[in-house]
Amino acid sequence: MNGAQALFKALTDAGVTTCFANPGTSEMQLVYEIGLTANVRPILCLQEDVVTGAADGYARMKGSPAVTLLHVGSGFANGIAMLHNAGRANTPVINVVGANASYHQPNYPEHELINGRVIDLARVVSHWTREARSASELGELGAEATVLAKAGKICTIVAPTNFHWEEAAPPPIPAALHRPMASPDAITHAANMLANGKKTGLVLGNLALRGDPLEIAGRIAAKTNAELLSETFPSFSLARGEGRPIVEIIPYFLETGLEFLKDFEQLIFVGALSPVVTFAYRNKPTLKSEPRCALFTMASADQDLLAALESLAKATGSTAAETMRRTRRSTAVPTGELTAEAIGQTLCALMPENAILVDEAATNGSKIFAATEGARSHDFLSPVNGGAIGGGLPMALGAAIACPDRKIILVQADGSGMYTVQALWSMAREKADIVAIILKNDAYAVLGLEMARVREGELNAKMESMLDLKNPALDWVNIALGLGVSASRAKTAADFYGVFASALETKGPTLIECQVAIPNELAAFAEFINKSR
Amino acid sequence: MNGAQALFKALTDAGVTTCFANPGTSEMQLVYEIGLTANVRPILCLQEDVVTGAADGYARMKGSPAVTLLHVGSGFANGIAMLHNAGRANTPVINVVGANASYHQPNYPEHELINGRVIDLARVVSHWTREARSASELGELGAEATVLAKAGKICTIVAPTNFHWEEAAPPPIPAALHRPMASPDAITHAANMLANGKKTGLVLGNLALRGDPLEIAGRIAAKTNAELLSETFPSFSLARGEGRPIVEIIPYFLETGLEFLKDFEQLIFVGALSPVVTFAYRNKPTLKSEPRCALFTMASADQDLLAALESLAKATGSTAAETMRRTRRSTAVPTGELTAEAIGQTLCALMPENAILVDEAATNGSKIFAATEGARSHDFLSPVNGGAIGGGLPMALGAAIACPDRKIILVQADGSGMYTVQALWSMAREKADIVAIILKNDAYAVLGLEMARVREGELNAKMESMLDLKNPALDWVNIALGLGVSASRAKTAADFYGVFASALETKGPTLIECQVAIPNELAAFAEFINKSR
Repeated sequence: MNGAQALFKALTDAGVTTCFANPGTSEMQLVYEIGLTANVRPILCLQEDVVTGAADGYARMKGSPAVTLLHVGSGFANGIAMLHNAGRANTPVINVVGANASYHQPNYPEHELINGRVIDLARVVSHWTREARSASELGELGAEATVLAKAGKICTIVAPTNFHWEEAAPPPIPAALHRPMASPDAITHAANMLANGKKTGLVLGNLALRGDPLEIAGRIAAKTNAELLSETFPSFSLARGEGRPIVEIIPYFLETGLEFLKDFEQLIFVGALSPVVTFAYRNKPTLKSEPRCALFTMASADQDLLAALESLAKATGSTAAETMRRTRRSTAVPTGELTAEAIGQTLCALMPENAILVDEAATNGSKIFAATEGARSHDFLSPVNGGAIGGGLPMALGAAIACPDRKIILVQADGSGMYTVQALWSMAREKADIVAIILKNDAYAVLGLEMARVREGELNAKMESMLDLKNPALDWVNIALGLGVSASRAKTAADFYGVFASALETKGPTLIECQVAIPNELAAFAEFINKSR
Repeated sequence: MNGAQALFKALTDAGVTTCFANPGTSEMQLVYEIGLTANVRPILCLQEDVVTGAADGYARMKGSPAVTLLHVGSGFANGIAMLHNAGRANTPVINVVGANASYHQPNYPEHELINGRVIDLARVVSHWTREARSASELGELGAEATVLAKAGKICTIVAPTNFHWEEAAPPPIPAALHRPMASPDAITHAANMLANGKKTGLVLGNLALRGDPLEIAGRIAAKTNAELLSETFPSFSLARGEGRPIVEIIPYFLETGLEFLKDFEQLIFVGALSPVVTFAYRNKPTLKSEPRCALFTMASADQDLLAALESLAKATGSTAAETMRRTRRSTAVPTGELTAEAIGQTLCALMPENAILVDEAATNGSKIFAATEGARSHDFLSPVNGGAIGGGLPMALGAAIACPDRKIILVQADGSGMYTVQALWSMAREKADIVAIILKNDAYAVLGLEMARVREGELNAKMESMLDLKNPALDWVNIALGLGVSASRAKTAADFYGVFASALETKGPTLIECQVAIPNELAAFAEFINKSR
């Protein structure tokens, strides 16, 4: 067997079935071997952030490694932003990056970077990065990557072309790797905190927000009177809707976060990080919790969170407690103007059981999130847990490939959506079962707000030109049609309800462009922020 | 003044007038100060490879530094691919990358990278990279970057937000920096080579392919009987068409390159690198020149190439020689099928004097290039000198901003164009005077060829699915309309001639989708390559 075959044998031996790909010349041997490998489905994407973002979405929903195929330094670089989100989520992703033949790299052909090598880029956004030094090592690295990825590591294999075609030994079968356990002292300390009578938030993150761990956390909360909180952007996926344990998300903005957390005396983190603000502002705190609030990390995202919560449930005698759950909320058909709230109400009414809601709605997200609390049981995916925007469309694509029998609903802000608009083409090609709802407000609306933190007075036209998406307005219907996705435009709340209802009846991708105004509250909030500079 | 003001004062003091931008929250103070700075025009782009690719195109045509404004690690990463091309071209680009406040970075908020920092990414694709450690240093770094950029260095300034708003000293006026001179020994050696009677190629690259240096090189060639050759992808810009010195480009593919160079006994490089292949292939040489061909680098791209050629002209007594020049070729209106050749003939007939031809036509490029040799005098830009694809649309945008009075003609392959399709929106917004000709063959056609180097037999459907852009076919007219650019489709050669002629009459961006077949020669070449594996 050659090195390419050894690599894909290692990956498929470990259960890999899907490869999100944007190959170039240096990946032709790999493409050829994928073509001969029965167990791997390749998904071509037209830009690399779509590749890595889709891999992230796929792996989060599948719970097992996604593989990407990327082309040298520039191709890898194009996928870094979405890979960063995956890395901050400890998503199991294995990147295979073709590189110049080892003996050709010193010749400095076009693709060689001016001040380093592919691996220098890869290392910064991967937990584990290796460049193969032989054909056999390609197989060995593939095997090692599968066990590391399953433990929540981003693994990147740089694969020089000569090792693709040279003779290789069959890959080894790697020993399984288990996630580390939280320390017993940490469990005891958390249990003692939960018994001390103080107002406590049990802040869950990553895998703790999914099915079983969340159920256990719900019992602990019920028994100890702690409140279940979620990290601001659930970094893996969040089980929510009818029948799911009640969890409140710590709000994004400093001001709303401070207000939300102001009464908490202690926060215990399970798979979540401290509630630091995304960006520091002049003369403002960087933590959303009060200085007097005690912060304790019981388990980090890369540890075994299910085992940690089971131990905590035992230590607090919560194993049989009765969890507080969301109930179904019935909503009337919304009427009037098309707003984020109306869209949320429609989703709440119509989203089918077991749907996957992908949220990159940015400033419109919180209203849709609030309105869908009482929807039928669903999984919620947030692509912005690492702050990099543009993950919505790729993540929806990946989730659809992972879960072909589930409906994917994407709420997507227009500005963010434009970074990875190429994902629509892959959705069309793969007949991915997605309803993509574009919230079009013709602006980077969040920046209007953030600008309020620094501006001395009103904005001038030049400043505004860097914050809005007008002149020309984007026409998402045409863009979608151009990329092969059927699309329509909803103008009123009732209109949207009807279009969305029919979209749910159709299998395959559909896009609905929704013109939504920037809400008055946001403008009021901007004024408040500007005054409190 | 604050740090943001100091930085932009340093940049504008050095003559910077344009900032290609995709800002985020951490750049709000910078956006605000740009808004208050009379001399800087911001150009918003909806994805960062558009930002950096446009900066590259702008700086190549302007010959002076372009500035980019990018948002933290993920935003910078999205622009790396096009920045890599700029770096390999020694284009004068200054990147300003916002970062978390210095005191907030250790808190590990969302945007912090999992295994390094913004500067670790920036360093790999920049000649010079600094992270400011104070507000005053922002101004100092800005000043230093301007002189380095003018000498052909990619400069990246990582700017933590707290230094934007903190008090800063006015920036220093930096001392000018001159490009290093080629060594006199190198000039003498080259002159001796040119006198030894061997068949010689004078291989020009980078700034040596522009106006004055090219004129001098033309005289040297005429006097010494050397042939003027160009690096495969002119890495800055190439002066060509009617009246320009005759230069032949070393072909891209190994086989055609070997054939082209087979009789040369020596090659002298002035701003160009050795003719190594872009990718190494199994059991094939990595140099396009024969092993017996002597290779000598007289001056590298970062040296003063004009001075080097002037010295060589003196040393060879060529200062008054008569240069061989291209003559105008008149072509009939092409008829029949729409082919790359017909497109090239149309361009040859109609391109106005002083147009800028941007070529990312990939497998269709060589025919268009050949057909436009006798066009009116124009500048030729190749965005793929670093191998990263997707530079065509952004480079056309940047060139149009740099040269508002010149017509920009872009010949753009469909696969490459999709990486940075967002550039169309900025073209529309800026009313950039561009005719974008999309060569739509529904495939990564070059990969079909490269696949022939590894495949054992015919391709199966799974392999083909990773190489073609079918199912669904892209509809560039709809995509362009969705992004605000007027667009049409040409179906025959005569059709294209008419549409292109009217596009030239209109100011502002237009897109013409041209369905072109993958030429038979390419398939024949693939067969030849497959058999010679």
